[in-house]
Amino acid sequence: KHIAVLSGDGIGPEVTAQALKVLKAVGEVYGHEFAYKEALVGACAIDATGNPFPEETEQVCQQADAILFGAIGHPKYDNDPKAKVRPEQGLLAMRKKLGLFSNVRPVKSYKALLPISPLKEEIIDGTDFVVFRELTGGIYFGQPRGRSEDGKNAFDTCAYSTDEITRVSRLAFEAAQNRRKKVTLVDKANVLATSRLWRETVKELVSEYPDVELDFMFVDNAAMKIIQNPRDFDVVLTENMFGDIITDEASVISGSLGMLPSASIGLNQSLYEPIHGSYPQAAGKNIANPFGAILSAAMLLEYSFGMIEESKAINDAVMQAMDEGFVTEDINKDQAKGTEEVGDHVTE
Amino acid sequence: KHIAVLSGDGIGPEVTAQALKVLKAVGEVYGHEFAYKEALVGACAIDATGNPFPEETEQVCQQADAILFGAIGHPKYDNDPKAKVRPEQGLLAMRKKLGLFSNVRPVKSYKALLPISPLKEEIIDGTDFVVFRELTGGIYFGQPRGRSEDGKNAFDTCAYSTDEITRVSRLAFEAAQNRRKKVTLVDKANVLATSRLWRETVKELVSEYPDVELDFMFVDNAAMKIIQNPRDFDVVLTENMFGDIITDEASVISGSLGMLPSASIGLNQSLYEPIHGSYPQAAGKNIANPFGAILSAAMLLEYSFGMIEESKAINDAVMQAMDEGFVTEDINKDQAKGTEEVGDHVTE
Ligand SMILES: CC(C)[C@H](C(=O)O)[C@@H](O)C(=O)O
Ligand SMILES: CC(C)[C@H](C(=O)O)[C@@H](O)C(=O)O
Repeated sequence: KHIAVLSGDGIGPEVTAQALKVLKAVGEVYGHEFAYKEALVGACAIDATGNPFPEETEQVCQQADAILFGAIGHPKYDNDPKAKVRPEQGLLAMRKKLGLFSNVRPVKSYKALLPISPLKEEIIDGTDFVVFRELTGGIYFGQPRGRSEDGKNAFDTCAYSTDEITRVSRLAFEAAQNRRKKVTLVDKANVLATSRLWRETVKELVSEYPDVELDFMFVDNAAMKIIQNPRDFDVVLTENMFGDIITDEASVISGSLGMLPSASIGLNQSLYEPIHGSYPQAAGKNIANPFGAILSAAMLLEYSFGMIEESKAINDAVMQAMDEGFVTEDINKDQAKGTEEVGDHVTE
Repeated sequence: KHIAVLSGDGIGPEVTAQALKVLKAVGEVYGHEFAYKEALVGACAIDATGNPFPEETEQVCQQADAILFGAIGHPKYDNDPKAKVRPEQGLLAMRKKLGLFSNVRPVKSYKALLPISPLKEEIIDGTDFVVFRELTGGIYFGQPRGRSEDGKNAFDTCAYSTDEITRVSRLAFEAAQNRRKKVTLVDKANVLATSRLWRETVKELVSEYPDVELDFMFVDNAAMKIIQNPRDFDVVLTENMFGDIITDEASVISGSLGMLPSASIGLNQSLYEPIHGSYPQAAGKNIANPFGAILSAAMLLEYSFGMIEESKAINDAVMQAMDEGFVTEDINKDQAKGTEEVGDHVTE
């Protein structure tokens, strides 16, 4: 099994290093051979090649069976209005070129983290849902987009085809079949033509999944309900922009961004990354939470390689590490362990 | 002073009736004469005229100095896929025709409601910010929008001009000058051309408000921060769609939707409405929370008539009613009072 490793910027490399240690241990215990190939992405790729998603990197990804991704972004590009290339463009180019059409984000409450969530324990305890966000369409990529000649008007286009809607929706329905059998489509069908196409298309599909219940929720209402009754959700299905907002909103439930893994399902291979971003202020300080990266590796094993048991072993090891107090400062300020120590403990 | 009264559907009429009682009392105490004219909007207007925002209603609004609005929406239209006219279309037509370009939503935590918020007390206590949402532009109204001929593609256009951005932004800056002097522009400038126009336009304006600090936040990040650190915000400025999501998300902070008023600032006259919607299940049961409507009347006095003291008197009366336990079942299940009783108590 070939794994492309794109550790990226900021804390990306150090958390990815922990995930690699864990994968190595899994390989040894279960007798798998994983081959790794590293490649540049993000700010470090701009520095080296001028391109945040260089062709070499694209090739490394195309030739791999799965991609382990760290994080990208660097303040020097955020604060430079003249910067022509930005790390984020690499991310969007990568999604488009690799056809990473569905972002999958599990949202869970962790017992050990209940005290640090901004939400009340009785609201979030037992939360367990997963968001399927369409990732290569909508207003992120629709044409035309830009400025009028006089510069006084700007426009973006949100566009969707039934095919784009169908492929991500199928993944959501299939996931629901293995879960609590409920899909909630989040849209704005009372305003948007694209949302009405989503509703129609998804409604037609549901007959193929007779065991799954489908319901609809306007995005503004969903933004409330996710905070008020997070336990009510099982599988959330939504378009790109709403998914961007809803997934980040939902990430506060668990109490630490550092915990949360994600998968981006691709046409040929899928990509796995912690959701936390490059967090440059923490880079090199051995304080970043490696659980998101480690749990992303677990998702990789399950989704790309069908290694359910191996994936579960990683999940269990993370839970155990939390129970034993092997956590970084985002989870326990007073008795924090380092990134490395936590990674080593999970590996063991 | 002429006030158009559009009480609408569901619980709209009963909560508006309480607001009118309170306005009448204010008129008597402070020696103002308010003249009211009622008009139809929403489902009841469709039933009577086939149009959710009839011309007569538009005229009543145009001739008024301010508009008091209840709520619109009825399940019979939500669940009828063949319904050609929907109450929501009336809302959008009204916003466009009356030029209601800026929706203003205060977000506050109320001591008495801390126990019923899904968020932890230490997170929300002391929250006090206000969202300025652009209300007549963006993806709600941009052209073209619709379907391809074969019906397999749909598209919406998000469009903004510098003028549209400037007028709502000025209101936000002016509000900040009377508050804690901080404006946070929420956008998605790393992806959208319209967001980049927002950033540029707002950056140019800030020099005219030297006492105000301006910062920028991506909408996904804002969706987290509003839950994690709501006290950090003072004035939030954003475009139509992001504002729709962010304001509803923020509304969970206070613990009850029923509490929250809003203003929609218009070119000639402004409209005031509780944010809670028509809540048809509660209609006619004397259980709806009238505070949102009453506080909307207070906003009307302040924003449209410059009656600061009168507005404050209403706010104080609502606080006192809460302290004295005159609250509806959304706030206190066990010792709830009725809509009427609460309205009467505030009026007294
Ligand atoms: C960096 C940005 C372009 C990106 C997005 O909006 O998709 C990020 O927020 C994400 O969710 O991965
Ligand atoms: C009913 C709907 C069209 C409306 C909107 O999206 O603006 C509502 O959600 C609101 O916020 O007033």
